[in-house]
Amino acid sequence: MTPPPNPVLPRTLAADLSTYADRPGIPVRINGWVHRRRRLSGLAFVVIRDRSGTAQVVVREEATLAALDGLPEETTVEVAGITSTNPQAPGGVEIVDPQFTALTDAASTPPIELWRPSITAGLPTLLDAAPVTWRHPRQQARWQLAAASLHGFRSTLDAAGFTEVHSPKIVESATESGASVFEIDYFGRPAYLAQSPQFYKQVLVGVFERVYEVGPVFRAEPHDTVRHLAEYVSLDVELGFIADHRDVVAVLRDVVAGMIASVHARAGAAVRLLDIEVPAVPAEFPLLHFREALEIAGAPADEPDLSPAHERAVGAWGREVHGSDFVVVEGYPTAHRAFYSHPEPHDPHWSRSFDLIFRGVELVSGAQRLHRYADYVQALHARGLPLEPYAAYIDAFTSGIPPHGGFAIGLERWTGRLVGVDNIREVTLFPRDLHRLAP
Amino acid sequence: MTPPPNPVLPRTLAADLSTYADRPGIPVRINGWVHRRRRLSGLAFVVIRDRSGTAQVVVREEATLAALDGLPEETTVEVAGITSTNPQAPGGVEIVDPQFTALTDAASTPPIELWRPSITAGLPTLLDAAPVTWRHPRQQARWQLAAASLHGFRSTLDAAGFTEVHSPKIVESATESGASVFEIDYFGRPAYLAQSPQFYKQVLVGVFERVYEVGPVFRAEPHDTVRHLAEYVSLDVELGFIADHRDVVAVLRDVVAGMIASVHARAGAAVRLLDIEVPAVPAEFPLLHFREALEIAGAPADEPDLSPAHERAVGAWGREVHGSDFVVVEGYPTAHRAFYSHPEPHDPHWSRSFDLIFRGVELVSGAQRLHRYADYVQALHARGLPLEPYAAYIDAFTSGIPPHGGFAIGLERWTGRLVGVDNIREVTLFPRDLHRLAP
Repeated sequence: MTPPPNPVLPRTLAADLSTYADRPGIPVRINGWVHRRRRLSGLAFVVIRDRSGTAQVVVREEATLAALDGLPEETTVEVAGITSTNPQAPGGVEIVDPQFTALTDAASTPPIELWRPSITAGLPTLLDAAPVTWRHPRQQARWQLAAASLHGFRSTLDAAGFTEVHSPKIVESATESGASVFEIDYFGRPAYLAQSPQFYKQVLVGVFERVYEVGPVFRAEPHDTVRHLAEYVSLDVELGFIADHRDVVAVLRDVVAGMIASVHARAGAAVRLLDIEVPAVPAEFPLLHFREALEIAGAPADEPDLSPAHERAVGAWGREVHGSDFVVVEGYPTAHRAFYSHPEPHDPHWSRSFDLIFRGVELVSGAQRLHRYADYVQALHARGLPLEPYAAYIDAFTSGIPPHGGFAIGLERWTGRLVGVDNIREVTLFPRDLHRLAP
Repeated sequence: MTPPPNPVLPRTLAADLSTYADRPGIPVRINGWVHRRRRLSGLAFVVIRDRSGTAQVVVREEATLAALDGLPEETTVEVAGITSTNPQAPGGVEIVDPQFTALTDAASTPPIELWRPSITAGLPTLLDAAPVTWRHPRQQARWQLAAASLHGFRSTLDAAGFTEVHSPKIVESATESGASVFEIDYFGRPAYLAQSPQFYKQVLVGVFERVYEVGPVFRAEPHDTVRHLAEYVSLDVELGFIADHRDVVAVLRDVVAGMIASVHARAGAAVRLLDIEVPAVPAEFPLLHFREALEIAGAPADEPDLSPAHERAVGAWGREVHGSDFVVVEGYPTAHRAFYSHPEPHDPHWSRSFDLIFRGVELVSGAQRLHRYADYVQALHARGLPLEPYAAYIDAFTSGIPPHGGFAIGLERWTGRLVGVDNIREVTLFPRDLHRLAP
């Protein structure tokens, strides 16, 4: 039996040890993981890691030095000791005269050397060992950026009159998206995993006017690429009573600004540790029509979509001409966007859709949507699609859904671009893809 | 073509019309749904509903009166008119000399009379028509309680050093829960929908110490009851470096207090409209051992669990003795809780688990969990369960997971008890059960 943690002395977080910089000699108690043991002659330094950072513990007592052999890296411990000033230690304070109490059995040797400043193992190893990989301070920092972004996303929308919703992930049909679906055995009949909350957020505009949802979406992606996952976290927004898609772009701008502000406010330590350049968000996103984007990219005027190379060219244009990491491209050809995209009324070849290009990569797709039943019927006919599979979806538009639009941000893609990694698996807690279903 | 909304006059929300109480004669523009038309002799009242509430519009002009025939209930409209003081109108201000512009085609007649003060249709009708049902002000108010509760849940945990996480919903095996699972075709091999984030939140305690997740969980419940859904929103919390389950109960108390505070702060109008009694949250939840709970319920001492009748008796005890709508029961028999529940070290027949009884119904389950690999092996042996299917789960506990515990709150069950409805389908946006897969 492990003795219970010391009930008298409250726990101090590693990051709060610095408050003892002018108070040496005070008894303190910390909890955490043995991050690194460094044995010198007649002396050992033990770095303890907790949720707030790391603390340095200095061991000089013979018995305690011997006991360290039984406390390998990653073992969770309680350390009771005395504060001591040391400019070399994190926060300028270290703990001396320590007593260690193991809170679990000695940890097995992790497949990754978490105490090294950078992670050196290959991606398959990192992903196989995800529960341990995420303990590395640089890896933790990546997720802190994601968590801070989620907070900024919600707080911006809460302040703008949006209502948080949660839509079902098991659906009867999933015809509104072109992506492939996962099939479920639902009490003996087929059902599907939702590829997006598209239908639900549109009908909920009919209820709350302005809605958002943070939740998983599922794509049976048969492609093994660095940009696609079978399951990811989608940040969905939809709002009604808009004039056109520019109203949606304005909300997107505020949401991105709120996410970035939250990264600064809540994940400043992560930003510094990773040494990343957090983008500035302009008062308005620079905006190009799809035709202009093709011109800038030097592409033929009849291209149906922007390729990754085109997006990089647009990104470079944004930096050079506007000093902006963000560019919105609007007016993608209607025929090549989802059938529920609203065409430009005076020139329906072009749609009221847009993408947000962040540092040369598409990050967000959005649009004004069709809001009239008759327009849905016409759009499906124009694409040669039968009405019947879409009946439940488009029938909702006979009940008074206002002009509306919205967008979706992929959390992992956002974090990946912020951190500057190409493979989104590196910023996904437990990725799912064609080959990976665990951990 | 609908004329575009008036770009000059900014939109006023219905709830903000009251700011014109001392400014009659001002032009305003509102957007919303035709909630109700009431035709009198030479006069009509039109109630417009938007996300903030309702506004009254008075029509006297012949041409406009005639135009109302083309604007049935639920049609979305823009109304430009002039403010006028009227103590009978919502907020003391109504709109006169109106001009109506339809923003969509005339809405079809809803299957539910949304303008009536209460909803009278039967549950199957309400659920079939969910996208429209939720427009009823009383129904909207129910979800506003849920959304406010989510906000309070997160803000309480954010302030207490918790990190938001998102775990995968597609899993390789789902053995840690006793519930039935949904099977998926995952690129040609079987996979399952997660019944809870249990494994992930436990290993993420190994990373962030304190984590929470709001997301869907899936139960292939073959039971058709008022308390069970096949998919619901689970509010999951897990924290490390605890002394025992009482530390978890203390966090639960603060979370519930934060949810209630947020309901008051953010959904006060919904509380008033529904005329519900929001519970007070005591500084500490009254706490009973399982044995005491059985005694209070007049049940035999060898009962393995509390029945609904026992829970009602415990709830009555909490109200009578402590004036509390909440009671925590701790120490359920170890053999009847999940195998990862931590037994009481000095008397392992009882576990360090607990339930929160809210108004006589179990709302939350929680526990200290096992944190040692050897204890997991022993717990599985004691239940006659093979190790192999649990290997991936329990292996994580060789890597240094601190003493920890957590709980989960079902959002729909919480909202249902708050509102006082027995069937949780009435507070679920789009419920999924044995028979229902749409809308």
